[in-house]
Amino acid sequence: MMKKFEVTILGSSAALPARNRNLPAQVVNYRDRLFLIDCGEGTQMHLKRNRIRMGRINHIFISHLHGDHFYGLIGLVSTYHLLGRREALHVYAPALLERIIRLQLEASETTLLYPLIFHTTQHIVPEEIFNDGRISVTSLPLLHRVPTTGFLFREQPHPKKLLRDVADKYEVPVAAFESIRNGNDYIDEDGNHIYNTLLTQESAPVRSYAYCSDTGFYEPLADMIRGCDLMYHEATFMQDLLASAREKQHATAADAATIARLSGAKRLLLGHFSARYEDLQPLLDEAKAVFSQSELAEDDATYEV
Amino acid sequence: MMKKFEVTILGSSAALPARNRNLPAQVVNYRDRLFLIDCGEGTQMHLKRNRIRMGRINHIFISHLHGDHFYGLIGLVSTYHLLGRREALHVYAPALLERIIRLQLEASETTLLYPLIFHTTQHIVPEEIFNDGRISVTSLPLLHRVPTTGFLFREQPHPKKLLRDVADKYEVPVAAFESIRNGNDYIDEDGNHIYNTLLTQESAPVRSYAYCSDTGFYEPLADMIRGCDLMYHEATFMQDLLASAREKQHATAADAATIARLSGAKRLLLGHFSARYEDLQPLLDEAKAVFSQSELAEDDATYEV
Repeated sequence: MMKKFEVTILGSSAALPARNRNLPAQVVNYRDRLFLIDCGEGTQMHLKRNRIRMGRINHIFISHLHGDHFYGLIGLVSTYHLLGRREALHVYAPALLERIIRLQLEASETTLLYPLIFHTTQHIVPEEIFNDGRISVTSLPLLHRVPTTGFLFREQPHPKKLLRDVADKYEVPVAAFESIRNGNDYIDEDGNHIYNTLLTQESAPVRSYAYCSDTGFYEPLADMIRGCDLMYHEATFMQDLLASAREKQHATAADAATIARLSGAKRLLLGHFSARYEDLQPLLDEAKAVFSQSELAEDDATYEV
Repeated sequence: MMKKFEVTILGSSAALPARNRNLPAQVVNYRDRLFLIDCGEGTQMHLKRNRIRMGRINHIFISHLHGDHFYGLIGLVSTYHLLGRREALHVYAPALLERIIRLQLEASETTLLYPLIFHTTQHIVPEEIFNDGRISVTSLPLLHRVPTTGFLFREQPHPKKLLRDVADKYEVPVAAFESIRNGNDYIDEDGNHIYNTLLTQESAPVRSYAYCSDTGFYEPLADMIRGCDLMYHEATFMQDLLASAREKQHATAADAATIARLSGAKRLLLGHFSARYEDLQPLLDEAKAVFSQSELAEDDATYEV
C-alpha cells in the first residue's frame, strides 16, 4: 500500500475572498504528519471546519508577504497558545514576517507557551529547507512583485522491501537484513551468492508535490520541479487578461498548463483564482487545451499526490 | 417614526472562535451610517455574509489590542484598497495598532489608495472621540489586563418638531421657524406671545448604546453609561468561574447584569462568551436573576437600540 501523501485545499481564492473560495492556505499530509502552506485570514477556522488536527502541524511555509497569504498566521499562533501548545512551531518565511508576528504578540503582552521558530527563506536559488529523512521541502524562486518562493515536497527514497519468505528459505540471518535492504547481495558461509534482486522488492518510486503561487509565467520553474506527481500552480487570470497578468506578475490558466507540460508533471491543480470568476470552467478549458491532466482546486477537497 | 439605530453582532465569541460564534466585531447602524466596533479575524467575511455595505463604514473603533479584537483589521484595510476605496477610513485605537498595520502594509509594499487615519485612544478618563452632530462616540475606561476602552454611542439632541398647522394659524413667518425649533416663543408684530409649547412637539428622546468589552466587574462603568437604552457587556464566564474571571479581568454573566442594574440600562445584551460554553442558557439565567431585561447576543442578529 502507498503511504499517505495528499494535499487539502483550504482556500483557492486570490487576494479577496470569493463565494465558496477562501484565502490561500493548504495542508500537505505525509503519513499523518501535517505541513501548512500559506495562511490567509480565516485559516484557523477552515482547519477546524475540515476537522484537521491542528496540533499535528509543526511546520508552516509562507510563500510571500502579500496579505492574502499570511494574515491568518497571527490568529493561528495565538490560538495554539490559548490551547496550551508546548511543541515548537517552525515557520519558513521572508524575514520581515517574524517582526510582524512578534510586534503583535508584544501588543497583547503575550509570552507564548511554546517555541516559535522562524526560518528565513530566500528567493534567489532553490534550497532544501526541511528534511526529516522521510520528506524534504525545497524552496523555489518564483517571479512575483515581492520576494516569493514556491515549495517542493519530495518523498525521500524508501529502503527496498526485504522478501522475508525468500530470506528464510536461504537461511539469511537477521543481522544481514539491513545490508540487503540497502541493495547488497548476501553471501552465505559456504560462499553461495544470493542476489539482491531475489531477496528484495523495489520500493515505490518517490513522489513529489510542487506548490507554485504566486508567480508570473516563469519557465525556469519547469526544471526546478521536473517530473513532479502533482503541481499546484496559480491561475489568477485567463489569457484575455494576459496584459494584466504580466503587469501584476500573476499567471493565466494557459501559463500554468504550459509550465506543467514543460516540467513533465503528471497532474496540474489550478488555483489562486481571481474573485472576478464565478464560473471556473473556462479556466479549466483554457488549461486543458495545453495540458490535459489539469484540474480545478476546490476548497475543502483533498487530492492525492 | 424613530430614526434607525441598531447594532448587528458579527461575533459573540471570546478569544477562540466557537461553533456558531465568531470572534468579536459588531456594526452600529445609525441612520444608515455604519460604525464598526472591534474587528476579529474573519470580520470582512462576516460583513459580506450579512450583506453589510462595507463602503459605508468610515469609522472603526478598536477596544484593545488582544488579538481576538483586531486581527481582522489588516485584512479589511487591504480589501478596501483592492476594491478601490478612496474615502478616508478613521480608526480609533491604542497607539500601537498603527505601527502594526503600517508594518504589514510595508511588507506587501502597499501604498493605500485612501487615507487611513489613526486616532489614539486613552483609557484614563471618558472622552468624546467622535461627533458629527447626529451621533457622538465617547470612549470609556474599562478594567482589563491591557489598556482597554468601551464605547458609548449617543444620539445627539434633535431639534423640536414645529407644528406647521399651528404656526400657519398664528401666521408665523417662515423666518421665525428655526428660532422656534430651538425652543423660543414667538412674539408677533402686535406683541402677542405664542408659547413654544403650543407651536412645537417634543422630539424623541436621545438614545444610547454602550459597548463594554473586555472588562472585569467595574462599578464606575455604571455611572459612565447611566440610563443607556442598550448595553452590550461581556460575560466571558459564569459565577462558578469567578476566580478565573477576576484573575483574567473578565466578567461573569452576573457581573454584567449587576452593572446593567446599577446603571439603569433599559436592556442588556450579553456577549464575548468563552468557547467552553456550548449551551448559553445558563449564562442567560444567571444574568436574568439579577437583571430581567437580559438577552444573549447572537451572531448575525440585529438589535434595535
